[in-house]
Amino acid sequence: MVVEEKTISSDRVYTGKVISLRVDTVEIERQGYQKREIVEHGGAVGIVAITEDKEIILIKQFRKPLEKVLWEIPAGKLELGENPKECAIRELKEETGYSAGNLKLIHKFFTSPGFSNEKIYIFLATDLILGECKFDCDENIEIYKLGLEEINEMIQKNEIEDAKTLTGILLAKELI
Amino acid sequence: MVVEEKTISSDRVYTGKVISLRVDTVEIERQGYQKREIVEHGGAVGIVAITEDKEIILIKQFRKPLEKVLWEIPAGKLELGENPKECAIRELKEETGYSAGNLKLIHKFFTSPGFSNEKIYIFLATDLILGECKFDCDENIEIYKLGLEEINEMIQKNEIEDAKTLTGILLAKELI
Repeated sequence: MVVEEKTISSDRVYTGKVISLRVDTVEIERQGYQKREIVEHGGAVGIVAITEDKEIILIKQFRKPLEKVLWEIPAGKLELGENPKECAIRELKEETGYSAGNLKLIHKFFTSPGFSNEKIYIFLATDLILGECKFDCDENIEIYKLGLEEINEMIQKNEIEDAKTLTGILLAKELI
Repeated sequence: MVVEEKTISSDRVYTGKVISLRVDTVEIERQGYQKREIVEHGGAVGIVAITEDKEIILIKQFRKPLEKVLWEIPAGKLELGENPKECAIRELKEETGYSAGNLKLIHKFFTSPGFSNEKIYIFLATDLILGECKFDCDENIEIYKLGLEEINEMIQKNEIEDAKTLTGILLAKELI
């Protein structure tokens, strides 16, 4: 049976801008005490944005933890008090200049449930309208529009290496 | 253009059992200095194990960061010096009792590239043989075998909420 883990104590190790870290001591029935390292994250959204020509918008972005540029769907962190849909509208606009006539939540998932509470909301965006591009000056990205066939090939070649992007595209493919 | 971020300094905040945390100060061309919070992780594997009857093995596991039981594929962390395939063989055996006659790497991805270097290797395991069950006493899990139709329905209802499980199953579905 899956038993829950009772928190005995909780130590805050670090409070940061994107993440915070705490270490909990838990008690597990018949197994005694263990430590759980927990990275707290405020949640994020990812947007599978599909153009009239059935192209998907992808972004190239440098990711410091990997020292590598990754292909990703437009995405971003929830601001304090912001709901996921508002966040998706804002991030799509900031990163790509597009607004979506139709924006639908298609899934929610946890990226690393073993050590983090990060939750990502995936939206499908269609009926796109390109507005005035007011890019966020903090962003350091390149924007592409790619056909589904090309993206399938990139997935097969393992050129798409970001979990939310893979999951978002694979889920969206079943809906479009 | 996507420019890289040059590390100016790096502060180690925490060194733990599953993760460690460092904060880098980076210099970005035309943008000045920024902080990057980076959760270091040694990598992990996930196994989409498919029985002769085309059922997929899923596990129910309590995840402390979410205070919730999740449906997941068998998975586990790489031990020091262990290669991903060895890890997949070990974890499948420890968590389910099965050995795979056929074990194939189908994808590698990063779960949270914004703040962590965690990389997951997904294996497709077929030709399963149930051996003597030597379950790891540290594991607190329930094991299920579910048909693809039932799993599809669970995905549609958002009952599968773990990124590696969603990605692994969606990728495997295209291969089986």
